[in-house]
Amino acid sequence: MEDLYPSRINSEPTVIERKDPILHSDAGQLSPGPLTIEQLKSFDSNGFLFLPNLFSDQEVKNMQSELDGLWEEASSSTRPEVIREPQSDKVRSIFAVHRDDPMFSALARDSRLQSAVEQILGSEVYVHQSRINYKQGFNGKEFYWHSDFETWHVEDGMPRMRAVSFSILLDDNYEYNGPLMLIPGSHKYFVSCVGRTPENHYKDSLRKQEYGVPDHESLTWLAKQGGISVPTGPAGSVLMFECNTMHGSNSNITPFSRRNVFMVYNSVSNALVKPFSGQAPRPEHIATRQSSLVNK
Amino acid sequence: MEDLYPSRINSEPTVIERKDPILHSDAGQLSPGPLTIEQLKSFDSNGFLFLPNLFSDQEVKNMQSELDGLWEEASSSTRPEVIREPQSDKVRSIFAVHRDDPMFSALARDSRLQSAVEQILGSEVYVHQSRINYKQGFNGKEFYWHSDFETWHVEDGMPRMRAVSFSILLDDNYEYNGPLMLIPGSHKYFVSCVGRTPENHYKDSLRKQEYGVPDHESLTWLAKQGGISVPTGPAGSVLMFECNTMHGSNSNITPFSRRNVFMVYNSVSNALVKPFSGQAPRPEHIATRQSSLVNK
Repeated sequence: MEDLYPSRINSEPTVIERKDPILHSDAGQLSPGPLTIEQLKSFDSNGFLFLPNLFSDQEVKNMQSELDGLWEEASSSTRPEVIREPQSDKVRSIFAVHRDDPMFSALARDSRLQSAVEQILGSEVYVHQSRINYKQGFNGKEFYWHSDFETWHVEDGMPRMRAVSFSILLDDNYEYNGPLMLIPGSHKYFVSCVGRTPENHYKDSLRKQEYGVPDHESLTWLAKQGGISVPTGPAGSVLMFECNTMHGSNSNITPFSRRNVFMVYNSVSNALVKPFSGQAPRPEHIATRQSSLVNK
Repeated sequence: MEDLYPSRINSEPTVIERKDPILHSDAGQLSPGPLTIEQLKSFDSNGFLFLPNLFSDQEVKNMQSELDGLWEEASSSTRPEVIREPQSDKVRSIFAVHRDDPMFSALARDSRLQSAVEQILGSEVYVHQSRINYKQGFNGKEFYWHSDFETWHVEDGMPRMRAVSFSILLDDNYEYNGPLMLIPGSHKYFVSCVGRTPENHYKDSLRKQEYGVPDHESLTWLAKQGGISVPTGPAGSVLMFECNTMHGSNSNITPFSRRNVFMVYNSVSNALVKPFSGQAPRPEHIATRQSSLVNK
């Protein structure tokens, strides 16, 4: 298959124009769904959409206590799904919660998420990846700028830009507890990164990304065009963002944790192929290759 | 001299009530000066005051180019005044610029700063410490929570809480480029920290603080009482804050640097004594012991 978005191949970074639609239509018609035309337009132009209070207080409470239980369990676990902070043993992320946890499995099938994403992707969808991110108070370290698609394309073999992520906020997000920052409009460009990917580096990369890192010049160019947006809001709010939107977050030294559940949907028409790096694919819990298992 | 604020002595952290005034009067009368009663009250209650656009665009430009020149010079310097980032060789701070640089020496005597601080401290003042903080884009790391007074008391022998700091913003401060965060009201409490200070640790501590670090419980207690405030504004704005106000900042992964000049004034009635740690004092460029040299 032709590599429309080559990355980690050249010695100089380049910026390529996006070759895929953002709103994917089915036979020229946008699909019906819960998002208004204004919301779709905003997603189209910015690459993200913030939905305040999509989940109720009670739903938030239930998910929070599920998070606490999983944290407890993960703290002493050596399961590969559990990723730790780069400079401590604190749990940073737990992967594949849509597969392993009944509550998050139900969340993956929740129509508030699934119908919205089907509307944007113009097709049936499946969960490509899910995880909990614990950005603990005092200790949470930064996530450097990246396009998720760049990694999913190079390391997992996602061929086209036809996936959308949800971050379900399970703590109040303030401007000061390391909230997600996004560069509006950045989803229209693909930043081709330098450096080859070593085999089996993914375990380290989930703690601290060292490959697929966009260069300073391209980031500055994107941020000067689009600025930086920092959506904040109460727990239960949801941030949905396009798979190629450049995003990252600063550290969190405040006492206030910033936990979220991250759920990625890919179009069934965009199932994974052989990784474009030419290397072995990452394991199932990071990028499932069973796209036929539509979560319905 | 009696140690009114013991710290790094006990094995358990404690919170002590402040034993000094915040607005220091001269014979029961507040001193006249540029700050309004409302501004003084706000400083008294919050422990800081934000003064937007105190310096003109032209003054900012002049200071910015001075910063560029000093950065250039510092990059290859081994002077003790130059401190580097904890995980890279990038310049993090340059100390004693009020002593070594003509422009910042003039800034130290600028009446917009000096008269305001004399109004609060109710006496003549001198510059206890000055520095430039370069919080570079992409690479700027966090400054963990601390009370400056705790360090100045333990390591430098500052006896009482009668000093005020200015941060002169030389880049636009946004909520996303690692701006200073303060806990309103925290200046009314002294968090006594645990752990003894090793001799000569200060060179490392200026890159990354490991002693005089307040505990999680005290920080959470303070932040739940007062919240967290993140003043932002254009370059040329000035943040003044009380020597005991708890503050810190997150990392800065954005392309936008967040440079500032930091100028600390101490009351001439509060000159340094022997460090309360019982150890040798830190060098002159970090804490001057020549309080007689009032900058007039």
